Amino acid sequence: MPDIVTAAMIVIGDEILSGRTKDRNIGHLADIMTAIGIDLKEVRIVSDDEGDIVAALNAVRERYTYVFTTGGIGPTHDDITADSVAKAFGVPCDYDDKAIALLGASYAARGIEFNEARKRMARMPKGATHIDNPVSIAPGFRIGNVHVMAGVPSIFQAMLDNVVPTLKTGAKLISATVPCGYGEGMVGGPLGAIQKAHPDTIIGSYPKYLDGKFWTELVVRARTQEAVDSARTDIEAMLADLDRQQKASNLA
Amino acid sequence: MPDIVTAAMIVIGDEILSGRTKDRNIGHLADIMTAIGIDLKEVRIVSDDEGDIVAALNAVRERYTYVFTTGGIGPTHDDITADSVAKAFGVPCDYDDKAIALLGASYAARGIEFNEARKRMARMPKGATHIDNPVSIAPGFRIGNVHVMAGVPSIFQAMLDNVVPTLKTGAKLISATVPCGYGEGMVGGPLGAIQKAHPDTIIGSYPKYLDGKFWTELVVRARTQEAVDSARTDIEAMLADLDRQQKASNLA
Repeated sequence: MPDIVTAAMIVIGDEILSGRTKDRNIGHLADIMTAIGIDLKEVRIVSDDEGDIVAALNAVRERYTYVFTTGGIGPTHDDITADSVAKAFGVPCDYDDKAIALLGASYAARGIEFNEARKRMARMPKGATHIDNPVSIAPGFRIGNVHVMAGVPSIFQAMLDNVVPTLKTGAKLISATVPCGYGEGMVGGPLGAIQKAHPDTIIGSYPKYLDGKFWTELVVRARTQEAVDSARTDIEAMLADLDRQQKASNLA
Repeated sequence: MPDIVTAAMIVIGDEILSGRTKDRNIGHLADIMTAIGIDLKEVRIVSDDEGDIVAALNAVRERYTYVFTTGGIGPTHDDITADSVAKAFGVPCDYDDKAIALLGASYAARGIEFNEARKRMARMPKGATHIDNPVSIAPGFRIGNVHVMAGVPSIFQAMLDNVVPTLKTGAKLISATVPCGYGEGMVGGPLGAIQKAHPDTIIGSYPKYLDGKFWTELVVRARTQEAVDSARTDIEAMLADLDRQQKASNLA
């Protein structure tokens, strides 16, 4: 059985915390991680503050297999991710020759001045390697287990597509969803017993509230199909039981 | 001038980290906090794991004026927020008399059994006070500076509406947005100089990428209208300057 591979995400940017920009990258990373068998264990959204970024990075990079960051790698004064990552790793942050050449050639081809602001996008921690950016050239970078990517969703997604094939993927969680017409208050008791009887699964219960009525999505997750199927069978039996009780009480 | 009031949010739930459910509460809290003059400084999304929830709570509750949590207060086995908050505060978690009475009356009125699972929703840390839930009765709660609310967006929003009038609000950040037809690479240099000249403002630059073209939203935030206006005047002058240069180079 493959190892369990874990990840954390750090979203960097005052604009998310102020509500100006609504994050669209967390859900995308979560979907991709689940699809390839990496457990996303934690997400932190932090402000454009070097101390906060360094503290968050150092808290998660030792703990999880991979760390992914978004935001703060553009050419303006509030883009401080490269410097913060360098500080977290205790290495200098400087212009990267390959990035300077790449960006220089791209701006030259378009007849655009390669000014100091644009050159900021070529700065990265010593020892970092590029993450290609097919959308707008300026690369992200990887250092240790940390992958630093753009915050603009189309660029983040393109960079992540380039990162995914380089990742060690783990034992994929298999899941099964059982829709349930009862609210959580109805299934909570028996479901807890089923969870106890199936310790090799994670059984989640997600309340939905629509038009004044509660219903629930029950989700079984496990590393093997057998474990999922076994718990699902018990859940379906529980729901059939509730249906029978409901019917009997309607007839009574 | 009012104090600066800060906040952190903890989103609790495996379903957000797996991508099954896309969070809709972070953006809402961020908008409300900005509107009432509280600085949201940090958000953490953690899994349904007591150790992780306790660690996140204890990391943020000392640091910020207020903490808001969403998720994990339903009637099922994976709803462990009340126990985790009690553990973080070092107090027992038990059935709350007032919540038992409230829920008992509500279920009795609807002819629904007040079973063990439903009673779980009346458990809260000793010393907690209720946050009313007009949607589905089961209350959230407040203990110390921590506000524990539901994850279902309609219920979270209703609970938050009840919390907002109880909060000490701070010096509201006033903001002005200056749309900018240039990419960040063009404005990055002069914008950094303007930020330095206006240390009492936070100038953000938010790159947008649409149909193969970059443009930028420049946002000035400050505690006073004067500070915002002064920085905005400099930004507008910078953009007018860039327009003139652009025009001159087109004529050349």
